Amino acid sequence: MSMQSREVRLASRPRGVPTAENFSFATVEVPEPGPGEVMVRNLWMSVDPYMRGRMNEGKSYVPPFQIGKPLEGTAVGRVIASQDASLPVGTHVLSFLGWRETFVAPAMRLQVVDVRQAPPVAYLGVLGITGLTAWVGLFKIAGLKAGETVFVSAGAGAVGSAACQLARLHGCRVVASASSAEKVAYLRDELKVDYGFSYLDEEPLEHLKKAAPDGLDVYFDNTGGPQLEAALYALRDFGRVALCGAIANYNTPGPGPRNLTLAIGKRLRLEGFIVSDHLKELPVFLAEAVPALQAGKLTSRETVVEGLDAAPPALMDLLHTGAGNIGKMVVKLGE
Amino acid sequence: MSMQSREVRLASRPRGVPTAENFSFATVEVPEPGPGEVMVRNLWMSVDPYMRGRMNEGKSYVPPFQIGKPLEGTAVGRVIASQDASLPVGTHVLSFLGWRETFVAPAMRLQVVDVRQAPPVAYLGVLGITGLTAWVGLFKIAGLKAGETVFVSAGAGAVGSAACQLARLHGCRVVASASSAEKVAYLRDELKVDYGFSYLDEEPLEHLKKAAPDGLDVYFDNTGGPQLEAALYALRDFGRVALCGAIANYNTPGPGPRNLTLAIGKRLRLEGFIVSDHLKELPVFLAEAVPALQAGKLTSRETVVEGLDAAPPALMDLLHTGAGNIGKMVVKLGE
Repeated sequence: MSMQSREVRLASRPRGVPTAENFSFATVEVPEPGPGEVMVRNLWMSVDPYMRGRMNEGKSYVPPFQIGKPLEGTAVGRVIASQDASLPVGTHVLSFLGWRETFVAPAMRLQVVDVRQAPPVAYLGVLGITGLTAWVGLFKIAGLKAGETVFVSAGAGAVGSAACQLARLHGCRVVASASSAEKVAYLRDELKVDYGFSYLDEEPLEHLKKAAPDGLDVYFDNTGGPQLEAALYALRDFGRVALCGAIANYNTPGPGPRNLTLAIGKRLRLEGFIVSDHLKELPVFLAEAVPALQAGKLTSRETVVEGLDAAPPALMDLLHTGAGNIGKMVVKLGE
Repeated sequence: MSMQSREVRLASRPRGVPTAENFSFATVEVPEPGPGEVMVRNLWMSVDPYMRGRMNEGKSYVPPFQIGKPLEGTAVGRVIASQDASLPVGTHVLSFLGWRETFVAPAMRLQVVDVRQAPPVAYLGVLGITGLTAWVGLFKIAGLKAGETVFVSAGAGAVGSAACQLARLHGCRVVASASSAEKVAYLRDELKVDYGFSYLDEEPLEHLKKAAPDGLDVYFDNTGGPQLEAALYALRDFGRVALCGAIANYNTPGPGPRNLTLAIGKRLRLEGFIVSDHLKELPVFLAEAVPALQAGKLTSRETVVEGLDAAPPALMDLLHTGAGNIGKMVVKLGE
């Protein structure tokens, strides 16, 4: 049972914001699975800001995508042919193997997801690497404690919306920014943050002063840029910054925070992290997140685009400031 | 026994580099000490970069100097009249009470220094707050370990020269920068750093690549500015930055590091600190530093100017990049 599969490839490396010319589509023959292998039909693919870094040639924390090869990303699929007893046909699995419809891989490279606990797409979002990223940044890197005030930039995005909710679940006061009135309404009405604002309509610092007159304890940074600078002003003594993303700088490096010197007198700690160093924490995180999701205290929201052809535009959209997605950006390939 | 004392006052707040007009001199009557008080004749006064921050009006980690009042700084003096049994006449004491020749203060606000162990001036430098600053930054903040490579900017300055020596004593490889050929010779010949360079003659990053082809583990930042940016490029994964000073930005704020985003992928930690949070570590530090000084493994070097009138020019000089001082800048007032 071999079959054909379409895939998204890197055609050329972008300068600045990626364009359609940087992507190409190809159809390949997928072989039958050999012993210990399974064939997987992807149902959902994740679209993530960090993919921009991998489109560059230079060294990043994960290897760059290769020109002419498929882009790699997280996906949830279903086993449709199996030569491995541990993954029977019908099992749902998480993979990190690429933007493609169907593939064959060794069973040991795939991770089973329990679709009785939550819908498959949640494993790309709030129950997956996205949720774990928020949890690690807040509690392991920034040491956020109950009663503290945290500011989350890009709070309506995938990691940001998970961070807002997890911080609230831990008894913290949450200030969050987003790039449109619609997203701010989502922050306030659905994520129940204590103070939500659009960073485009006023200086972020003015909002932070209003939101937290006594200052911030923690800043969860998804953006870098002017919001990082505003947060450095607004942080209290001994404040902590979890450096998670810098979407303001992904396409073109921006100016650095001119007030980093404040970190000396305020004894601030800024720490970068990447979630792959912390995958062993996933069970600990899920033990907290799954019951919270089932109890309705943690919500999973996605912006869904349909079909493989929609994947490159979704990534391009995500990388524009003010992009249209709320929550996790995903591509739906099947049921 | 009352007497007269001259003192240095803040006449006006500087914009940018301080000038002579920002300082004034006054002669005041010093009263006799009351019960529990002593009269101290200062012998040595410390000139420190952090004093620039206190000349501004804005909030800093220590309160601003007041216009018309003496500048405050560290000094070592001798008790010349005493109404407190714990500090007999002739005792040497450390104070934080101002740039003045003679003063009266409660005995409990002064700290005895043992001049049998080291010359009085050493207690303003390598055995004092200066040395403790270097030690806390390297080992408590940055967690420097034997065998690691550390870069110290402004390595010929007071804190920098202590940091270079302490790091070497702990079995680390030391890279250090300074602002003149004379200072670089001091780094190489007297402090025995593994690689010393002038940051004015070439891009700091080019030097760091040569000095540490496998990257830096720790950066002890005394400058901010271009050297911080170069260090962020040169740090290895999981590198640490102790943010101690930012002399490049004290007079006028400079641009921030444009590459701070690297901290995410490299999992860098940047942490600011001020030594006054760590004074309880002083005995631990001295237990290490005093024997090292006596064994000649730690040297104390000062740039000495004489007389109270020389104090403001010494501070102005210190705040110029490329200033003439090597080691600790001190004002000598007496024997």
